[in-house]
Amino acid sequence: MAFTTKATIATFGGKLLKLAHKSATTGTDMNVNVFFPGGASETKKAPVLYYLSGLTCSPENCSEKGFLQATAARHGIAVVYPDTSPRGLDLPQEHDSWDFGEAASFYLDAGEATPYGKNYKMETYLTEELPKLLLSEFPALDGTRQSITGHSMGGHGALTLYLRHPGRYRSVSAFAPISNPSRCPWGQKAFKGYLGPADLEITPESASDSTIPEAWKSHDATELVKKWTGDKDLKMLIDVGTGDNFYINKQLLPENLEAAIKEAGLTGATVRYQKDYDHSYYFISTFGQDHVDHAAKYLLA
Amino acid sequence: MAFTTKATIATFGGKLLKLAHKSATTGTDMNVNVFFPGGASETKKAPVLYYLSGLTCSPENCSEKGFLQATAARHGIAVVYPDTSPRGLDLPQEHDSWDFGEAASFYLDAGEATPYGKNYKMETYLTEELPKLLLSEFPALDGTRQSITGHSMGGHGALTLYLRHPGRYRSVSAFAPISNPSRCPWGQKAFKGYLGPADLEITPESASDSTIPEAWKSHDATELVKKWTGDKDLKMLIDVGTGDNFYINKQLLPENLEAAIKEAGLTGATVRYQKDYDHSYYFISTFGQDHVDHAAKYLLA
Repeated sequence: MAFTTKATIATFGGKLLKLAHKSATTGTDMNVNVFFPGGASETKKAPVLYYLSGLTCSPENCSEKGFLQATAARHGIAVVYPDTSPRGLDLPQEHDSWDFGEAASFYLDAGEATPYGKNYKMETYLTEELPKLLLSEFPALDGTRQSITGHSMGGHGALTLYLRHPGRYRSVSAFAPISNPSRCPWGQKAFKGYLGPADLEITPESASDSTIPEAWKSHDATELVKKWTGDKDLKMLIDVGTGDNFYINKQLLPENLEAAIKEAGLTGATVRYQKDYDHSYYFISTFGQDHVDHAAKYLLA
Repeated sequence: MAFTTKATIATFGGKLLKLAHKSATTGTDMNVNVFFPGGASETKKAPVLYYLSGLTCSPENCSEKGFLQATAARHGIAVVYPDTSPRGLDLPQEHDSWDFGEAASFYLDAGEATPYGKNYKMETYLTEELPKLLLSEFPALDGTRQSITGHSMGGHGALTLYLRHPGRYRSVSAFAPISNPSRCPWGQKAFKGYLGPADLEITPESASDSTIPEAWKSHDATELVKKWTGDKDLKMLIDVGTGDNFYINKQLLPENLEAAIKEAGLTGATVRYQKDYDHSYYFISTFGQDHVDHAAKYLLA
């Protein structure tokens, strides 16, 4: 048994398992919650929607407050809530701020040369080790039908994992995603620390195509769509609240992603600006049904 | 303005206000959250559903995790989330345990002779002062159409306020309510402290009709239905999870309430035992839709 079950909770006609396991990829214990819809079994497998959470979060936040289970149960879809970073380490600067280090992995594999390279391999963990372990232990999950969504930093994670692994996920959506991290303070701080170079000084104002390192561009949704060679139909849904202070303060920059999608001649991407909504789970829970419906359209096709 | 607005949050097409005000009844500041469905106005007033929360809770728990708003928005119903007790006091034993004192008021008016009599006047606060202030400040609320629900201690509160004030609420429901507090440890501890006599020694085993003080019976749903003279159709919905440890350990005793309702020849009460569900908001959120639909049936009739 790869996983230790810390709790089994009946909810929306199915069950939520709180799981822990030792990850060979990160070299740490990892937590993950999984919602199984009622009736899922080895002979009636459930497709899987991954939800990546935002800065400071754990698998609990969306499990408790996102309300995704209500709609997932209706569609017979499983939802996987991974953690936002490895835990229990003591790396340089890992615990100095809430927007870098623990609970702020940005869902990438940190550069080997950085202090984070050995453990912060979240992309490999999320796209290889975790699905493999889940599918091996839970035959009710269907590894051939997966989609991904996420919030804020997790919206960035969902968009970039989707765009970096064409064909792995059937659709993508995001709530208030960090859409152009190379050009916002959160993303620049993270990319500098996780991808280097450590001595690079770059600001949102000075960021331009020529100053942004290629390593950063390869983890930036706005840059990735410029080079996208997959299906022109992006199967992408994004919601952003106009009352979201992080949107107002240009940490999210969905307008840059929208412009890049248009410029690249891609279709099937809907970006909605929801009047007055903020960055919280009050926003996510309101539009969660739409995002699960969006995934269901492709997972159940 | 009776209320200070601490936050205005867009959610489910309406808005959640986090309010604070000085209560003349409790002599303290009080917090209350109110969800206004979209489109409610002075000329299109919204009926009101009160939700009373459980031990240790605040107005936030159900606002964030209960998802009553999803269904209330659909029906055009407002939801009021009061606090679970006065705050900021320092009464004897008020902060010694999580099941008595602060955040554990049991929604009654404490006896004048007890140390709690001056401030813990929650029944008066909830049935008189709070509705009056809300209706006066928010003309979009319809004071002629009110229902009540709650969880655990708040389920006790909903049932007893409904049964003690015939006609005030159009319907009642409860999630895992403390249904016979005179005969369970939580209720006995609370009633002893709030209603006295302070030297009374009573245990669940020794509790009988003759040993239970009349003051306790008057705040006990199971006792109140025995003397109920209102409409025989109780318009009551109760859900209890069979995996709820507090149910298993006989803190809730819904079976006693059921038996008393049957014995009294009353109708219109549905008590459902939900297989494997626990005491948490995973349970409440699952059946929240049913409870708001139940209230809507009477509020919109």
